[in-house]
Amino acid sequence: MIAPSAIIHPGVRLGADVTVEDFCIIGAPFRGQAGEETVIGDGAVIRSHTVIYAGNVIGAGFQTGNKANIRELNRIGDDVSVGTLTVIEHHVTIGSGVRIHSQVFIPEFTELMDECWIGPNVVITNARYPKSPEAKQNLRGAVIEPNAKIGANCTLLPGVRVGAGSLVGAGSVVTKDVAPGIIAAGNPARRIKNIFY
Amino acid sequence: MIAPSAIIHPGVRLGADVTVEDFCIIGAPFRGQAGEETVIGDGAVIRSHTVIYAGNVIGAGFQTGNKANIRELNRIGDDVSVGTLTVIEHHVTIGSGVRIHSQVFIPEFTELMDECWIGPNVVITNARYPKSPEAKQNLRGAVIEPNAKIGANCTLLPGVRVGAGSLVGAGSVVTKDVAPGIIAAGNPARRIKNIFY
Amino acid sequence: MIAPSAIIHPGVRLGADVTVEDFCIIGAPFRGQAGEETVIGDGAVIRSHTVIYAGNVIGAGFQTGNKANIRELNRIGDDVSVGTLTVIEHHVTIGSGVRIHSQVFIPEFTELMDECWIGPNVVITNARYPKSPEAKQNLRGAVIEPNAKIGANCTLLPGVRVGAGSLVGAGSVVTKDVAPGIIAAGNPARRIKNIFY
Repeated sequence: MIAPSAIIHPGVRLGADVTVEDFCIIGAPFRGQAGEETVIGDGAVIRSHTVIYAGNVIGAGFQTGNKANIRELNRIGDDVSVGTLTVIEHHVTIGSGVRIHSQVFIPEFTELMDECWIGPNVVITNARYPKSPEAKQNLRGAVIEPNAKIGANCTLLPGVRVGAGSLVGAGSVVTKDVAPGIIAAGNPARRIKNIFY
Repeated sequence: MIAPSAIIHPGVRLGADVTVEDFCIIGAPFRGQAGEETVIGDGAVIRSHTVIYAGNVIGAGFQTGNKANIRELNRIGDDVSVGTLTVIEHHVTIGSGVRIHSQVFIPEFTELMDECWIGPNVVITNARYPKSPEAKQNLRGAVIEPNAKIGANCTLLPGVRVGAGSLVGAGSVVTKDVAPGIIAAGNPARRIKNIFY
Repeated sequence: MIAPSAIIHPGVRLGADVTVEDFCIIGAPFRGQAGEETVIGDGAVIRSHTVIYAGNVIGAGFQTGNKANIRELNRIGDDVSVGTLTVIEHHVTIGSGVRIHSQVFIPEFTELMDECWIGPNVVITNARYPKSPEAKQNLRGAVIEPNAKIGANCTLLPGVRVGAGSLVGAGSVVTKDVAPGIIAAGNPARRIKNIFY
């Protein structure tokens, strides 16, 4: 069901049983666009006021909260949820089963691997020296490994890697890589303990 | 005054002198809905692009900033203001005279008592182990007691209680209860001093 | 180009080649308004769902991301960009060449000087004792000097001044002035090193 006020631009290919609620914009054109299609898989629920730019390729079972904002040219797996008021920039890679909560910021070149969980208001960065002449060439995305969990309102510095299954406590500032299978927290984040299964 | 582009779903009961601005959605249906009414008291001003799901019961003098987002089944007192781009999840209890600033995140089961003040970008949490099999059964909301103030961009861990009249400094991470009548700050937040009147 | 669903209130003066995308509201009336014009310079691109209240005077080359929110009576120079979901309150002064990233909060009386850079989710404050009887008279805006950079998710306490060319690391809490030409970081933020050119 496509709401009457929703705007679907040309070049958008929607799967079966897709819902697009009111005041959404899907397939919005971007600078430098070269005929890229926008593909959204079966069963998606795109909640009101969400904007998805052109050139995204998104799997089945996709959900957004209200007012999510997704820039161009991202690759997103199956069963992904992007929360209310969350911003995904461009050239982001998101695996399957990933849950991104509300008001999150995910910059370009971030990689979110399968089944990871990003808490509300998490802020990931990619520019070590913003506004420096080489800032654009030196962008380094963070990598969140499978099943890692990033607690609410954490800040991740450019290029950090959070290991598989680890949990970063809410409000932490992650300045360097986090090993797999641990709990880390603080500013800067340090290992608190291992996770035993 | 209801703006022409605003969408008011069936089952919404608005008080006298209610303003609903453009691109708002009021009484949006939710999963599992069972005929719950949406009640908004006299004199409300719902600013543009705000979404309020069904099943909320809201007192008089309610205000939202632009683009606020309020999920279903909350109980909200009189003279409450919910700021621009703030997210209120479901099953939240909010007393009277509460001011919630911009870009705040309030998860399910939070209790905000009378006259408390929640600063911009505050993030409250409720899941100690996100994605664990028992996460949904173990959600623990925070309790903010009357007249407490939570500074900008604070992070509150699940289930913490902030005592009446206390002030938590901006940017703090609150990992355990804060006694009444004190100023606390830091990561983790600690008592800085008592408040004398 | 003004999108068909955009709302342009009376009293708005747009320069040449201005784009206003869908679901925007420009020149929204505010309490106490007294005939103030809204001026937006040549070449502006106002992206979808953005709200700009009346009484703003904005230079040439202005850009907003989607869903930006700008209250009344601000003065904004040339070539300024306000990111997706960012909130600018009222009586803010912004120089030229300023870049404000996504999901930022800028309260009233803030001064952002030329060419400064404000990272994603930065939160600036202006009230030392929120809700105190004198809170409104004692608001103190932060000052960000030319070419300073405030890292992602930093919190700035009321009235702090960040010196020209300095960089505040992501996730910091700035509790007092930052000297010019340094890198500062932490909670509270402290000098890490000088910047040599």
